[in-house]
Amino acid sequence: MKPAPSRLAMVPFVSVAHMMEIVNGIGPAQLMTELADYIEADFRRWESFDKTPRVAAHSSDGVIELMPTSDGENYGFKYVNGHPKNMREGYQTVTAFGVLSNVNNGYPILLTEMTVLTALRTAATSALAAKHLAPKGSRTMAMIGNGAQCEFQTLAFRALLGIEEVRLYDIDGKATEKAARNLAGSGLRVVSCASKEEAVTGAEIVTTCTADKQNATILTDNMVGSGIHINAIGGDCPGKTELHRDILLRSSIFVEYPPQTRIEGEIQQLEANHPVTELWEVMTGRAPGRRSASEITLFDSVGFAIEDFSALRYIRDQLERTGAYVELDMLADPDDPRDLFGMVRRAG
Amino acid sequence: MKPAPSRLAMVPFVSVAHMMEIVNGIGPAQLMTELADYIEADFRRWESFDKTPRVAAHSSDGVIELMPTSDGENYGFKYVNGHPKNMREGYQTVTAFGVLSNVNNGYPILLTEMTVLTALRTAATSALAAKHLAPKGSRTMAMIGNGAQCEFQTLAFRALLGIEEVRLYDIDGKATEKAARNLAGSGLRVVSCASKEEAVTGAEIVTTCTADKQNATILTDNMVGSGIHINAIGGDCPGKTELHRDILLRSSIFVEYPPQTRIEGEIQQLEANHPVTELWEVMTGRAPGRRSASEITLFDSVGFAIEDFSALRYIRDQLERTGAYVELDMLADPDDPRDLFGMVRRAG
Repeated sequence: MKPAPSRLAMVPFVSVAHMMEIVNGIGPAQLMTELADYIEADFRRWESFDKTPRVAAHSSDGVIELMPTSDGENYGFKYVNGHPKNMREGYQTVTAFGVLSNVNNGYPILLTEMTVLTALRTAATSALAAKHLAPKGSRTMAMIGNGAQCEFQTLAFRALLGIEEVRLYDIDGKATEKAARNLAGSGLRVVSCASKEEAVTGAEIVTTCTADKQNATILTDNMVGSGIHINAIGGDCPGKTELHRDILLRSSIFVEYPPQTRIEGEIQQLEANHPVTELWEVMTGRAPGRRSASEITLFDSVGFAIEDFSALRYIRDQLERTGAYVELDMLADPDDPRDLFGMVRRAG
Repeated sequence: MKPAPSRLAMVPFVSVAHMMEIVNGIGPAQLMTELADYIEADFRRWESFDKTPRVAAHSSDGVIELMPTSDGENYGFKYVNGHPKNMREGYQTVTAFGVLSNVNNGYPILLTEMTVLTALRTAATSALAAKHLAPKGSRTMAMIGNGAQCEFQTLAFRALLGIEEVRLYDIDGKATEKAARNLAGSGLRVVSCASKEEAVTGAEIVTTCTADKQNATILTDNMVGSGIHINAIGGDCPGKTELHRDILLRSSIFVEYPPQTRIEGEIQQLEANHPVTELWEVMTGRAPGRRSASEITLFDSVGFAIEDFSALRYIRDQLERTGAYVELDMLADPDDPRDLFGMVRRAG
């Protein structure tokens, strides 16, 4: 009789179906609110993390990246690809999965899908940044780009900031229709707009989340009035930007991790020493956030490994609450660590 | 009714139990022979790979590493930990898993345990190197260090080189007993030795695979006669070596990837510009291997990402032959890539 794998051999695995069960069980708004707390807690102890720019393998079609980080107790990494041409072939532009481990023995303690989870953590991070940077009492958000991130962003801003109206715009009207349909019944006033200019009208917060590969100017300088908060999340690789350079020069710029953002973010358009503030410094009170009602604040977000680490921690902590996982026999665990060969042969 | 995940969402997963089924089904010797062919094929096209030293996260207890590489068609990485103190606490010193992906769309196509697989690829690589470097007609191997690698090494050398006698030695006699027990019936003459000196007597090949963390001198200069091949695989991190420096100075040294070996291998004891030959150059005929019967050849092996890549390719190619895998719902795959949110909500 083959013995069952030992407890030490098992790693909890959260599939896409499990992740959807977790999201629907907790509710996306509630989940992103809880997740934002995990992210803020980790940003507040920013200096205790090992930080490194992502490890990227580029090809003509796209990129595959590994994003590792550690707080000394846990180690996490995300595998994520970015292939803009995938959509035309029926594949996802971005897919992801991740692993959380114990630093003290190196054993993985969670394997999870992260395509859905990345959408949740990206939106939670955006809303968290806006909580520190957007004008107090913001009620209207323009949402330019109505793709896969759109509804997550909108619901996170409603949950964390109390946004009441979202003004949707996309160059493809079908994307706007899709988003409006998904947001019906969310309690938000959803306004579908025919132009970017219409979308930003009256908005205290402007979120841009477009997927152009080339340097684009989704927002031009004359569209941006004083006092607004811009949440720019579409630019995330060299050559992919959304904002006109003149907007950047008028804004106070906040970023996650400068060594990565200077390469991948909107600020790749600026000098390498252009002043930026790290978001964690605002959260800890080490640097000011918004300083006046007329200031333009810009969160130039490209996504950083610590946000994925927070998301992995959060999901690990939901395993017991939700039961949404299976255990995988992923780690060889012979009775005698030196007898790996004997373990294999006895299984035969 | 919840729709089943689409085909595109699924990734084949090879568990530890599946891997043992594959090894026992094909037979360890046959498997390592086939695997050596994959490794040699990849070494012969060495220049077509993206190569990078491993990405390591060090802690006081050990290290967690990611080892990525790509040939432009596939991308692979291995997660591996090394925690010497684990054994005392009932955990494995080294555990590993890995992923193979398509470069053209970034989608993972295999997730597999790699603790057992790493043992197989390490032994296959050692035997492959010896095929090019050891004296012709070698029949006797000394095996110093009888831990988890010992039987894999021994069987690989029997399969690829026709070794007839293995002379075992370990500072812990129980390890030698374990290895001798596992190798009984293998067709090899197994000689358990009471000392290192006794083990190397008459051996044309000496394999050292000990787990000392400190700089050790498992082999001293007066134990090494002319004409032998040394397969040194235990040294694999800074401060962990097995051979006396004088042996290195008398040997022709062959390595996998110099930027990594100079940090982690036996040659960390030598000047940074000490001449070494890359194994792939020998395989392609670009550099000579063994040049005379009296030469001491040394394979200073620390393990490199391309060997794991070959192992991932090999296992992927055994999926159909063995059926030893399950499919995991690991990649979110909405009908409309822009409607990730709708996919999540419809699952509720």
